[in-house]
Amino acid sequence: MSAKTVVQVINPNTSLAMTETIGAAARAVAGPATEILAVCPAQGVPSIEGHFDEAIATLGVLEHIKAGREQGVSGHVIACFGDPGLLAARELAQGPVIGIAEAAMHMATMVSTRFSIVTTLPRTVIIARHLLQRYGFEHYCAALHAIDLPVLALEDGSGLAQEKVRAGCIQAKRQDGSGAIVLGCGGMATLASELTLELGIPVIDGVGAAVKMVESLVALGLSTSKHGDLDYPVRKTLSGQFAGLLPD
Amino acid sequence: MSAKTVVQVINPNTSLAMTETIGAAARAVAGPATEILAVCPAQGVPSIEGHFDEAIATLGVLEHIKAGREQGVSGHVIACFGDPGLLAARELAQGPVIGIAEAAMHMATMVSTRFSIVTTLPRTVIIARHLLQRYGFEHYCAALHAIDLPVLALEDGSGLAQEKVRAGCIQAKRQDGSGAIVLGCGGMATLASELTLELGIPVIDGVGAAVKMVESLVALGLSTSKHGDLDYPVRKTLSGQFAGLLPD
Amino acid sequence: MSAKTVVQVINPNTSLAMTETIGAAARAVAGPATEILAVCPAQGVPSIEGHFDEAIATLGVLEHIKAGREQGVSGHVIACFGDPGLLAARELAQGPVIGIAEAAMHMATMVSTRFSIVTTLPRTVIIARHLLQRYGFEHYCAALHAIDLPVLALEDGSGLAQEKVRAGCIQAKRQDGSGAIVLGCGGMATLASELTLELGIPVIDGVGAAVKMVESLVALGLSTSKHGDLDYPVRKTLSGQFAGLLPD
Amino acid sequence: MSAKTVVQVINPNTSLAMTETIGAAARAVAGPATEILAVCPAQGVPSIEGHFDEAIATLGVLEHIKAGREQGVSGHVIACFGDPGLLAARELAQGPVIGIAEAAMHMATMVSTRFSIVTTLPRTVIIARHLLQRYGFEHYCAALHAIDLPVLALEDGSGLAQEKVRAGCIQAKRQDGSGAIVLGCGGMATLASELTLELGIPVIDGVGAAVKMVESLVALGLSTSKHGDLDYPVRKTLSGQFAGLLPD
Amino acid sequence: MSAKTVVQVINPNTSLAMTETIGAAARAVAGPATEILAVCPAQGVPSIEGHFDEAIATLGVLEHIKAGREQGVSGHVIACFGDPGLLAARELAQGPVIGIAEAAMHMATMVSTRFSIVTTLPRTVIIARHLLQRYGFEHYCAALHAIDLPVLALEDGSGLAQEKVRAGCIQAKRQDGSGAIVLGCGGMATLASELTLELGIPVIDGVGAAVKMVESLVALGLSTSKHGDLDYPVRKTLSGQFAGLLPD
Amino acid sequence: MSAKTVVQVINPNTSLAMTETIGAAARAVAGPATEILAVCPAQGVPSIEGHFDEAIATLGVLEHIKAGREQGVSGHVIACFGDPGLLAARELAQGPVIGIAEAAMHMATMVSTRFSIVTTLPRTVIIARHLLQRYGFEHYCAALHAIDLPVLALEDGSGLAQEKVRAGCIQAKRQDGSGAIVLGCGGMATLASELTLELGIPVIDGVGAAVKMVESLVALGLSTSKHGDLDYPVRKTLSGQFAGLLPD
Repeated sequence: MSAKTVVQVINPNTSLAMTETIGAAARAVAGPATEILAVCPAQGVPSIEGHFDEAIATLGVLEHIKAGREQGVSGHVIACFGDPGLLAARELAQGPVIGIAEAAMHMATMVSTRFSIVTTLPRTVIIARHLLQRYGFEHYCAALHAIDLPVLALEDGSGLAQEKVRAGCIQAKRQDGSGAIVLGCGGMATLASELTLELGIPVIDGVGAAVKMVESLVALGLSTSKHGDLDYPVRKTLSGQFAGLLPD
Repeated sequence: MSAKTVVQVINPNTSLAMTETIGAAARAVAGPATEILAVCPAQGVPSIEGHFDEAIATLGVLEHIKAGREQGVSGHVIACFGDPGLLAARELAQGPVIGIAEAAMHMATMVSTRFSIVTTLPRTVIIARHLLQRYGFEHYCAALHAIDLPVLALEDGSGLAQEKVRAGCIQAKRQDGSGAIVLGCGGMATLASELTLELGIPVIDGVGAAVKMVESLVALGLSTSKHGDLDYPVRKTLSGQFAGLLPD
Repeated sequence: MSAKTVVQVINPNTSLAMTETIGAAARAVAGPATEILAVCPAQGVPSIEGHFDEAIATLGVLEHIKAGREQGVSGHVIACFGDPGLLAARELAQGPVIGIAEAAMHMATMVSTRFSIVTTLPRTVIIARHLLQRYGFEHYCAALHAIDLPVLALEDGSGLAQEKVRAGCIQAKRQDGSGAIVLGCGGMATLASELTLELGIPVIDGVGAAVKMVESLVALGLSTSKHGDLDYPVRKTLSGQFAGLLPD
Repeated sequence: MSAKTVVQVINPNTSLAMTETIGAAARAVAGPATEILAVCPAQGVPSIEGHFDEAIATLGVLEHIKAGREQGVSGHVIACFGDPGLLAARELAQGPVIGIAEAAMHMATMVSTRFSIVTTLPRTVIIARHLLQRYGFEHYCAALHAIDLPVLALEDGSGLAQEKVRAGCIQAKRQDGSGAIVLGCGGMATLASELTLELGIPVIDGVGAAVKMVESLVALGLSTSKHGDLDYPVRKTLSGQFAGLLPD
Repeated sequence: MSAKTVVQVINPNTSLAMTETIGAAARAVAGPATEILAVCPAQGVPSIEGHFDEAIATLGVLEHIKAGREQGVSGHVIACFGDPGLLAARELAQGPVIGIAEAAMHMATMVSTRFSIVTTLPRTVIIARHLLQRYGFEHYCAALHAIDLPVLALEDGSGLAQEKVRAGCIQAKRQDGSGAIVLGCGGMATLASELTLELGIPVIDGVGAAVKMVESLVALGLSTSKHGDLDYPVRKTLSGQFAGLLPD
Repeated sequence: MSAKTVVQVINPNTSLAMTETIGAAARAVAGPATEILAVCPAQGVPSIEGHFDEAIATLGVLEHIKAGREQGVSGHVIACFGDPGLLAARELAQGPVIGIAEAAMHMATMVSTRFSIVTTLPRTVIIARHLLQRYGFEHYCAALHAIDLPVLALEDGSGLAQEKVRAGCIQAKRQDGSGAIVLGCGGMATLASELTLELGIPVIDGVGAAVKMVESLVALGLSTSKHGDLDYPVRKTLSGQFAGLLPD
């Protein structure tokens, strides 16, 4: 591992445009000694809008975790708001692995007493709900909103989805009594800072939040615990298409 | 779909021996009009002992869900105690999909006020804990025990693992004040009825429980809701090895 | 106990009409080897719409549990949505005892991520809330609705209550984002299958669900645990009208 | 209702000896303007050690609630640690109704950060657990202990049960890190003040606590809400042995 | 300590007018053998409408706790709805210490199944939410309402704030399906009894509730546990303005 | 605010030795562009070992928050494991405010599935418990341990306390099945990195964690929300010793 902190930012879907958006958001906040490697799977789903999509995307995440570990990256970010494959990735990785939903939610609890989430399709709301339950943040979430557009609308160049996100944030601020808003999709990453300024409340993008969290853990000398639950996967022969997933 | 109820029992690991064990347990309790199709992935992990293993196994589960749906099976059982891929499978399936952890835990709450879980490796305990939280059953679980042997020890023919399971159940009954015990691995399925008799308390195998749950839902005309969260996956082009996962 | 599975379905109120409705719903889903014994107390309350009514009805439930046990029935269903006397009945019974709220709620969590409940009078909502808390299903329930008609309106032959239930279900589907609906009264049992078809989502009746759950437990050789909390009542001399409640 | 505050203390079991114990404990703490009416059912169970016993005892409680209401008592105490029939009694009563488990648990949270419970038979522990969940006090309870003697051992004159309670309290103080102890049976009521002195921590008897709570509510002009959930039972014809339970 | 029960009622803000309001409310419900000492800090905040205000007010509360203890009062009431400094006060005090939010919430759960809270400024709602969580009463609270007027509007003589409280209570009764209302500010204390009469449901003031709770604990011989968590503060040299806070 | 990130690290007790320990730990992990200002109150408590101590220390924290804000610091750390005055400080501050318990607990959930806490006196455990509840991390904490030495034993130069912390961590790793350990006192800050190496699991110090969290929030342009609950304190005249606490 070099003197630089190398943060591998994995977009779990196959959209190159979104990978660029995410990489740009990561670089915008990364420290001067941090290098961002933004990657996405060669095979998989073009966008993630449900549990089925997540299951497929998880394989691509794991392939990149393995590759990143072999390259000696300092840590990993899973840049999809459902944090797909988070615990599997932690088993496989040597360094820290942070999901963007996780990072954004954690930070939201530190700058507000209650926050709202603005996401894409209504069916992704249940994924956020389950993460709130798992992470312990149900009490901190005032409401969840869906703009009812698919994820890739954020990359269609029309600006419509961005406008709907903005409208959703304004409405959330007004209705929910929330002090902060969490953006519920990696593709919204570049909107956070301008919305923070416009709305006058923290509007939190998980990509940036997760990059800072990885940098922080690395600086503190903390990494994924290899004692017990998150130890490296038990070595066994993986067959077929999965044969290469475990490092030698 | 024929007049028969066809229950596809998917062993998510690639062990043919365990698939037979599971199939036998399923057939032992299936109704006279039920046909059991016990299957396992051609590729994947030989046993499931962590989140990484689960992530891989989920792909095999989904391939079989798709195949089963095309064959017109009545419903599906995911026969690994972590219920890997459960919500993804529900999106993909037309019929009901039941996990064996889920089925066993639900039934345990109906025959006792508190139950214990006996599982294989200590690192699988966290998976059971998370399921208890997700399903709402934390209050019902008095304790979790691990016999500290790998899953495939249940198939090595020595009987050692079976004896350790038996000892674990006896100890759990004595120590925990539990009224029932849930067996925490599909490979333990055939032990349930004799342990129920020997211990004089319900010792619950999820494979049998899940088969009966699928039969019940089918008989009631109930299937996975396709309204909202568990609707069929949004149609999109899957690439590479995943291309065939969505039905036409 | 005969080769047949005999399920005693106890309507805890004294309404013969509702007992017939419930018995019919039970028979409609029972397996070919199952015999349904639909009974109701000779004395008690004509309908159950509060905790006071439940307390009285519980005595009738227990009398029938005792009688059923002496007749050698395979298991028991308590066919009132508050599951009155459930744990007391489990102590007294040898076989499994299932409440219809319990059964319907459990099944709803297996075919949807969140469900709604449609019940009768607003004051019965608190009973359902407490059951959701006890059973661990608060996170699964999106909303509770009351049609604001008494229970016996379901038996007045006018069809008004049935129409209000239907309207309540349609509204719940539209408003709550729920994937399934649980019918909150035994008297609604016969509506489930047609509403399931009309609405295109699972509309779940607890009577049928509970019958299948008893059949399942019996087939699995599982019964109420007699170790610890649900052991037979401590033998003591019951006085007065209660003298006959304990088996010899 | 007279100028005096009349508190009806209902021992739900039929033991006259225990009713006297309870009445004495109530009188020992009652205010100068309070009259204690200690009553028990003519018919029912001699002691309450499970859900079945509770179900029967509830009928006796309701008969006395009705009688008390007709006599114009100011409020009611249900003097059994499972608070049997509490919500049913609240529906039937005009004045406040307080359970002794409820009262003791509430008070314990106000003089300590965590408390222990010492009760009689192990099988009654589950009842206390369920009350802790219902009342919201799970976080306040450090541990539950059973002396493993039946309730009526407290009235056998040998002092053995009392000595076991004392030993249980001493052990709980030492092991659990609790600041207070709740006595888990109405029959232990007279032990509280001496154990409080001996142990140097609050040892709380629910009978006394409930009497003071009723006095307090009466003095504040607060009574059971008759708006909504706890309104008087819906008027309907009760049949048979239950015919007289509703006031005219 | 005299034969009288002396209850020190500490208004944590510096408003003499509100201290009189609170003292009057306390005296109106105190028993004949109870003396009320209503006090407020000489220095601090004129009203408490946030966490910062609470932090300052806590110092004044502690000074009075110390003084009260030295005077030999029987117990203490903290008469601000956020219960500021409650656990610190319990450490410092010898007698019981009760917060008015605590007392009102506890009593509300005993006369209703669910209650609403009506408070002053919207930003105080989060304080009540946190108390509901701490005390275990989240399930009992149907809704929180703010009249959007500052605390001292209750003392401006115009009656506007009182009218808004009344309107808020009426609206809460209609909308929330609650059986009782908790007044969320010590300055509303004198409104409770008339609103109880007008609305026909328990409208609960914490000042009165807390006074009765202290009287009850004193009568029962129960005081703040000095074993463990709430033991007297570890003796150490306090410097500067805090030097006098610990008793000799 | 300068181009540098200035993090004010407030030791809430008056111990200069501990302030130096804490400052050193902060500087050891701070980024190259970060300046650490380690301060402690001139007046207050020499160590914090209970709620009373926390209440006093909170005033000192607030004075420093005000001063830091006037100096234009970028953000603040409250370097006592109880996070005393956290929400009050957030109201008063313009920048982010992070408590060290909060920071350590959050980070622990990202590198392990469950963690243990090792703290000083047993009576401080309840403070950690309440924080776990407030922050939503109860499910993540396997156990809490106290070394049973006062806070200042960490500064007595003997090394005894440090050795007991080490022993406590080793025991926690062995017994609790935890993947990480959180050090429960600011005075333990400098032990984290060597224990992390020795034990081979993340041993987390909140001081370093909080510094990185403040740096991260500043880099992301996120600060304490001033919309709603955490808005600046309502302006009012503070009297006496508190007069200077609000900025002009």
